[in-house]
Amino acid sequence: MPELRKDPIVGRWVIISVERGKRPSDFASPSQKRKIAGFCPFCPGNEYTTPEEIMAFRTQEGKEGAEWTLRVVPNKFPALQIHGELDKTGEGLFDKMNGVGAHEVIIETSDHMSSLATMPLKGVEDVLWAYDLRINDLKKDPRLKYVLVFKNEGEAAGASLEHTHSQLIALPIVPKIVREEINASRHYYDMKERCIFCDVVDQESGDGRRVVCENEHYLAIAPFAPRAPFETWILPKEHESAFQPHGKSFAKLAEILQRVLKQLDKLLDVPPYNFMIHTSPFTDETNEYYHWHIEVMPKLTKIAGFEWGSGFYINPTPPEVAAKYMREAQI
Amino acid sequence: MPELRKDPIVGRWVIISVERGKRPSDFASPSQKRKIAGFCPFCPGNEYTTPEEIMAFRTQEGKEGAEWTLRVVPNKFPALQIHGELDKTGEGLFDKMNGVGAHEVIIETSDHMSSLATMPLKGVEDVLWAYDLRINDLKKDPRLKYVLVFKNEGEAAGASLEHTHSQLIALPIVPKIVREEINASRHYYDMKERCIFCDVVDQESGDGRRVVCENEHYLAIAPFAPRAPFETWILPKEHESAFQPHGKSFAKLAEILQRVLKQLDKLLDVPPYNFMIHTSPFTDETNEYYHWHIEVMPKLTKIAGFEWGSGFYINPTPPEVAAKYMREAQI
Repeated sequence: MPELRKDPIVGRWVIISVERGKRPSDFASPSQKRKIAGFCPFCPGNEYTTPEEIMAFRTQEGKEGAEWTLRVVPNKFPALQIHGELDKTGEGLFDKMNGVGAHEVIIETSDHMSSLATMPLKGVEDVLWAYDLRINDLKKDPRLKYVLVFKNEGEAAGASLEHTHSQLIALPIVPKIVREEINASRHYYDMKERCIFCDVVDQESGDGRRVVCENEHYLAIAPFAPRAPFETWILPKEHESAFQPHGKSFAKLAEILQRVLKQLDKLLDVPPYNFMIHTSPFTDETNEYYHWHIEVMPKLTKIAGFEWGSGFYINPTPPEVAAKYMREAQI
Repeated sequence: MPELRKDPIVGRWVIISVERGKRPSDFASPSQKRKIAGFCPFCPGNEYTTPEEIMAFRTQEGKEGAEWTLRVVPNKFPALQIHGELDKTGEGLFDKMNGVGAHEVIIETSDHMSSLATMPLKGVEDVLWAYDLRINDLKKDPRLKYVLVFKNEGEAAGASLEHTHSQLIALPIVPKIVREEINASRHYYDMKERCIFCDVVDQESGDGRRVVCENEHYLAIAPFAPRAPFETWILPKEHESAFQPHGKSFAKLAEILQRVLKQLDKLLDVPPYNFMIHTSPFTDETNEYYHWHIEVMPKLTKIAGFEWGSGFYINPTPPEVAAKYMREAQI
């Protein structure tokens, strides 16, 4: 008998095929192993092909002309534009505003053959620092309410370039999914005086079946009602409402993120994936009810009419099975 | 400047690239033109390969052994199972129940080379009658609350077989997207004593820029805040809360549905697509606030990290542009 499971935060139901759980080898996804293939605008020497650099890390910090190890540039085809007024207007029933915002690309390393799973750990830490610096800079713009940091790895997951990169989009409104999560978390807090994510961390740590891995400060789990096979969430163990270093370090977050990505690469032969950082909006960054986290979604199944029409997801791999495979992956 | 637009019903924001609107020829999607390719379990002669028939239309109605023109069979790999108790249980914070429900396949014609866009109009009418009959039958099961009828056309849209078919999934809960639409419509009705979809029909008919086509009883529009290029909604012009024939006929609905699909095939070279029928739940089928409709979504763009993390969609073709192309398509 399949199982219907409800995400405790947003109330999304998923259908889990409990008996006929698909194993990692049942998914045929195009391997994202790096190839050297023609011209790459993100490789060293081709900096002139990107819009003007917003920031970079270099081998000799501060020294102009030193080799860069990470660059942040505006997206060449931005979804939103940084200049202009919001100009909110109505049109009968309808509401609209100008597409003011920022759309940036974080080129995570100068090495075309490297990925977040394979680069030195220090490189992953630098990527997290770049997210943090950019979020803190964009926060100063009073028109913006939210920054979504995300990564598309592989063409099937929406990446148009192979060279490893993430993106961020800064928005003048809080996106619907985040608003839903926040409203639901606030509602839970109003009832219980506790953060629902903290309760999930506690229950999952105690239960153990859905734990993928953990370290001193972070827990990685297969969520109870995952939308996709091998969906993995990384959460700080202690309550933190917005994305931030632990103390003054991203070392432990880099460690667990890279570990999860290595496990996925090992099990699913370098699959396409997306990850997204869910964090509190600028206007309410420090609060007791919302808990920032990273959601990693390997791209193994297709979104079809049923999902579009219902918001339901059909997941052929129970999270308990996925977590066990992940724990046992030899990386 | 891109534009941010809000869907008036569920409050979903989308980013519309107003200036650099992509034309139909800018989308490279695999053509779904029919090929005869090996064994097809949905073709006449191979009926033994499907689970036992639930219903069929035949050339001589009622006559066993007459040739079938449409068949409904259980899905061979059902997401939900028809037998069993719901058995709702908690697991600490989490909620789950047995995956009780129905998952059926409507084989729309016996002709492998045909599609909903190319078959005789009478065939499309029959498909709509099959939906209606199956919904009315499943409604009798007190465990079930909703039937979602949907179609996946083409592999990129999630179809695993080429032979034209639709599916339905009957669910023991009202899905999240439907619940959101219904709650929002009820809220609007509470404020205005009017159905929001009726107001959309009125405004769009008067405005005209987003009208794709219409007939006596139905209106097809590119919605104001479409998630995808060439997304098209078909709505009854008069208020109807649940999917039903107009009077006692599906002739006019078949006509406009086939017209929209022909326009898409012409403009986008037989693209992969999904469609979903949004209708009221069984428990509240006749009401003043919800308005059933069909949403057609050509599969031209990819869902990536930004969409997953935000519920926002980036649409490179403004609906005014899409509707104009659709109106001018020579079909």
